[in-house]
Amino acid sequence: MSKGSITRDRIVESAFAMATVDGLEGVTIGRLAADVGMSKSGLFAHFHSKTDLDLAIIDAAVQKFVAVVIQPALEAPRGLPRVRALFERWLVWERRSDVPGGCPFVQFAAELDDRPGPARDAYVDSQRRWLEVLARAARLAVEVGHFRRGLDVERFAAQFHGILLTYAYLHRVLGDRRAESFARATLDALLASARPSRRLASGATRRNRGSSP
Amino acid sequence: MSKGSITRDRIVESAFAMATVDGLEGVTIGRLAADVGMSKSGLFAHFHSKTDLDLAIIDAAVQKFVAVVIQPALEAPRGLPRVRALFERWLVWERRSDVPGGCPFVQFAAELDDRPGPARDAYVDSQRRWLEVLARAARLAVEVGHFRRGLDVERFAAQFHGILLTYAYLHRVLGDRRAESFARATLDALLASARPSRRLASGATRRNRGSSP
Repeated sequence: MSKGSITRDRIVESAFAMATVDGLEGVTIGRLAADVGMSKSGLFAHFHSKTDLDLAIIDAAVQKFVAVVIQPALEAPRGLPRVRALFERWLVWERRSDVPGGCPFVQFAAELDDRPGPARDAYVDSQRRWLEVLARAARLAVEVGHFRRGLDVERFAAQFHGILLTYAYLHRVLGDRRAESFARATLDALLASARPSRRLASGATRRNRGSSP
Repeated sequence: MSKGSITRDRIVESAFAMATVDGLEGVTIGRLAADVGMSKSGLFAHFHSKTDLDLAIIDAAVQKFVAVVIQPALEAPRGLPRVRALFERWLVWERRSDVPGGCPFVQFAAELDDRPGPARDAYVDSQRRWLEVLARAARLAVEVGHFRRGLDVERFAAQFHGILLTYAYLHRVLGDRRAESFARATLDALLASARPSRRLASGATRRNRGSSP
């Protein structure tokens, strides 16, 4: 790696951490220069505009998210274990010390929803890909028989993500200690509603396949 | 009403609309002065600081929310109809032309979560009261027999609110047309899980009390 790219990585790392706390808007060239101990003009050599910097932050967030959440979860067996692993890894991600303000994708949503441009496009793309990862995990769970046939896997993905949004809201905003237990209970309910056994049970008599522990 | 308070109302109305799009951070004294056609010093006569202005915006949001969502919903009969009315009124609120950027409480969460101070306190207070309105509606539904005894009404409130957060995310951020149908399906599942009939059905035989329409 060249000295230039090491410097750039250091700047992006600092900008990323700042953005998890204060959002993209909170990361100004001036503030970032002070944080990494460079001149503003030195920073401009790496990022020619605030948009460049925003895109680098979003890209760093995606790379970290893939490494912390998606790759480890994909090591879990297909089906229910992988779906659960995606949830557990997301909780790890939300609490990492190098993600000081909590999941930046939750933060960026409010900032970018009314701000058309390349940063919004990159953000929306990251979110569509995440929902697709979730939908694919659900689709595999259908294939291996853990989830029922006919499950709307895209709705499942949205509901799964909604549990994470609710966790972030309760935990980060309200400081509610029940955030995690509520999230786990809601996930359990969602998984139960996706399982084949319930539907069979409503038809008739297969008691032994019931979902009680 | 005095001329001063009419002017103040007009400023707050403009600031509120701006904040639904650009967040509290996006409402600067300078931008607002230009928007309402006043001088900055004229504005300062009404709001002595940005914090004053933030508090006025949050207060306006709460008043509007009570008028648009809570009061009309409280006219619905206790129990399931009132819980459903809270959902329907929230959708009305999210789409009103005088709330151009969508529900500001969703917007403010990301801004205020890491920003201690009076604005955060006012926001958190508004959210706790909203969750309490939802929990109380669920508690009444238990009392009138629409929801099962022993329901965790606070978890219900968090799950209900999570449906709204997910709607805002899908609709405002991703522009997903299925946002509303997903929200309705998730609400139906939540309401079904809260009803007494399901639990009875798992014990035994009261087929006629099943929840099919």
